[in-house]
Amino acid sequence: MTLSIDFTNMIGPGVAESEWTGAGARFRRAHAAVAAARTRPGAALGWIDLPNDRALLEQTTRFAQRARGRFDDVVVLGIGGSALGPIALRTALRPSGWNSLTAEARGGMPRLQVLDNVDPETIAALLSRLALDRTLFIVTSKSGGTAETMAQFLIVRGRLVEALGEAKAREHVVFVTDPARGSLRPIAAAEGIAALDIPPNVGGRFSVLTPVGMLPAALIGVDVGALLAGAADMATRCESDDLSRNPAGTFAMLQWLADTRSGKHIHVLMPYSDPMRDFAAWFVQLWAESLGKVQPGGSSSVGPTPIAALGATDQHSQVQLFMEGPADKTVTFVAVAERATDLAIPRAYAEVPELAYLGGHTLGELIDIEQRATAGALARRGRPNMTITLDRVDPWHVGALIQLLETATAYAGDLYGIDAFNQPGVELGKQFAYAQLGRTDADPKAKQEWDSLPKADSRWKV
Amino acid sequence: MTLSIDFTNMIGPGVAESEWTGAGARFRRAHAAVAAARTRPGAALGWIDLPNDRALLEQTTRFAQRARGRFDDVVVLGIGGSALGPIALRTALRPSGWNSLTAEARGGMPRLQVLDNVDPETIAALLSRLALDRTLFIVTSKSGGTAETMAQFLIVRGRLVEALGEAKAREHVVFVTDPARGSLRPIAAAEGIAALDIPPNVGGRFSVLTPVGMLPAALIGVDVGALLAGAADMATRCESDDLSRNPAGTFAMLQWLADTRSGKHIHVLMPYSDPMRDFAAWFVQLWAESLGKVQPGGSSSVGPTPIAALGATDQHSQVQLFMEGPADKTVTFVAVAERATDLAIPRAYAEVPELAYLGGHTLGELIDIEQRATAGALARRGRPNMTITLDRVDPWHVGALIQLLETATAYAGDLYGIDAFNQPGVELGKQFAYAQLGRTDADPKAKQEWDSLPKADSRWKV
Repeated sequence: MTLSIDFTNMIGPGVAESEWTGAGARFRRAHAAVAAARTRPGAALGWIDLPNDRALLEQTTRFAQRARGRFDDVVVLGIGGSALGPIALRTALRPSGWNSLTAEARGGMPRLQVLDNVDPETIAALLSRLALDRTLFIVTSKSGGTAETMAQFLIVRGRLVEALGEAKAREHVVFVTDPARGSLRPIAAAEGIAALDIPPNVGGRFSVLTPVGMLPAALIGVDVGALLAGAADMATRCESDDLSRNPAGTFAMLQWLADTRSGKHIHVLMPYSDPMRDFAAWFVQLWAESLGKVQPGGSSSVGPTPIAALGATDQHSQVQLFMEGPADKTVTFVAVAERATDLAIPRAYAEVPELAYLGGHTLGELIDIEQRATAGALARRGRPNMTITLDRVDPWHVGALIQLLETATAYAGDLYGIDAFNQPGVELGKQFAYAQLGRTDADPKAKQEWDSLPKADSRWKV
Repeated sequence: MTLSIDFTNMIGPGVAESEWTGAGARFRRAHAAVAAARTRPGAALGWIDLPNDRALLEQTTRFAQRARGRFDDVVVLGIGGSALGPIALRTALRPSGWNSLTAEARGGMPRLQVLDNVDPETIAALLSRLALDRTLFIVTSKSGGTAETMAQFLIVRGRLVEALGEAKAREHVVFVTDPARGSLRPIAAAEGIAALDIPPNVGGRFSVLTPVGMLPAALIGVDVGALLAGAADMATRCESDDLSRNPAGTFAMLQWLADTRSGKHIHVLMPYSDPMRDFAAWFVQLWAESLGKVQPGGSSSVGPTPIAALGATDQHSQVQLFMEGPADKTVTFVAVAERATDLAIPRAYAEVPELAYLGGHTLGELIDIEQRATAGALARRGRPNMTITLDRVDPWHVGALIQLLETATAYAGDLYGIDAFNQPGVELGKQFAYAQLGRTDADPKAKQEWDSLPKADSRWKV
């Protein structure tokens, strides 16, 4: 079981060799800063300890065991990290097309739906398809103040009570929320609704290894213990303050140097694996929301822009731009050494050159060859790239990759000189929405500010 | 029926007012260049005429009518534009969760699956779920030389022949390809396989209004005539060389000025609509692959980097970066004036401030308010943005938006000084793949180049 990063193609066009060999001291400072922050009261670094949190694991598996056989559908009501984590785990760790499989093919486990938006069409359509007496809704919000999730909850609660009555309805809801604070805990206590914990020192985008991601995963049969074991292995590797041994340090330092020294402001994550397709979107939130910040005490905006891509698919979409467009990107491939299944390409049409060469190969060979070819072609054009190789897409390796990227984000926060664990930039938009929704306890200054915004100008319309 | 662009929030932070008011002459040159290129032999501007191509529409609807009732599943084998177009149309124009609906809820129309990659797990899983005697495979490749699609075709053909015999198998395949050239036409002729046309002067990423997108759409019951009617209306609007009247010109000029004059190198498309979720990925290919180029005769790399986002979901992922990160982005919202359905949020928990204010609103109100709030907050922070409003998400408006963005891409090609209709940057990667696959007619120089690439260096590995 191994996860490795080959960054041969980063050295030179992305990061000068001398910069890299001289980066060890700066990394040790970042490593020490993260270690120091961990012990500070109120710090949001609790995710570092999640791989060894037996209590949370037991909460999760106990609930999942009790739920076994009772539900055909599990529906997550959540947005941001509350949605991206569960979606990534489902796609990576359950057979392809899970929600389209028969109950038998799912081994009696439920489907997993994730309502990650408030578009009424999606929600109305899903509710009309569900058998409510066979459905469990997981309401995920640490604060219980997320407008989208709370709106979904109010609608779902209304439907459940209507269909099943108050008493039965509560058996079809579980909260995943702060252990003490927020609006959902008192409701859980008053109404006898089950509630699992998000530790106070773990933020939304770092919460996939809490019940936020683990509960939906466990309910559909993912080995969440193995997920934590992989994460624990990576956490151990990341205890080293030696850059050349620390995978998260290597990833963070390469990206930061490439961005700030060589103008590689855009960081692409490109798995060559359909199971890892949605994992890239999880990474986008982690990297964008953690690092896209105004530096404290200054007005300097920093942060790389992450992009999700998928190989081989995006060779026919974004790769032309990565290859020939502005030299402002790094590409991180995720390759898979052993695929769970493979398909032979039959030999046929020996006289047609466009088809003949494919026969005798397998699809697994084709996709792997395309990954290496694309990496090589990018390198040949001076476009920096690196490859993270997973032995397999399984819980252990996905857990390790999660821990690697979360830890890299913490180091990058120190390198960029920002707080990787807040998101102050979205507050103004929330306040503007509250002003329009008439939330009475909202900031009155935001209401005035909203009302005084320049209005649409008919000159600027077509 | 209207599609409008409000770009009030672009003027100032994205494009100086004086630049905009002086841009008319430059636009007239771009408009004239596109008009002139249209008549040039070999030019790839055939997509301009697609809205009025009755012959292609008839090919499509005739095939779809004959197929009615015969299939439970339609599977597109295609990658790049051949996949992104059909996926975007299915998500936008069929009820949410189409492939999860019962046959009755689908009005007897088939599901639509799109195999856009060569991951063996996905393809094996899909093939094991399908009843081959009730499945139609659409093999989409203009040249018949797309490795991924041809590999899929060889596998599917093998399975069909095994399950149904040679004679029956051919009734379950249709090619969408060049009318005369490429590897698929002779196979179609020799084996009696149906084939629909991609006009020679229409490239893959501009092909959604050919049978590439129209055939899958028609098979699942989309009104493809209305799609073309909307596109035709936009094509008429884009005949004007007056920047202030031409929506595609407005979009292209704003983005180009923001990129080249104000450093807004990243162009986000962010619909506030689940149906439009996959449309953003279609746009990413169009904008990235068309404009990310080396300028001819020079070594200057140009082209904006497009990003797909989704509101309100991405307010909890990418918006922090858009708001506070580097000021290198424009955001184009897609708003919807009338939603096909809405859901009331019940009043409950009057004593809980996080929930009480939501009751009495609808989900449609909530998502629209969030769009305006996010646009306003970005504007307040000096982050340029514009809003394209569709009256409804229906075939007419989606057709209009497709034509708008394709036409904008052509203008932008002239503004950036590149050929928007080729993709030379992906050739090297293809040749490197051929070298590894042992394609005998491949470029021998590429094989040498591949063999001489620097090998992985153990110093650069963790």
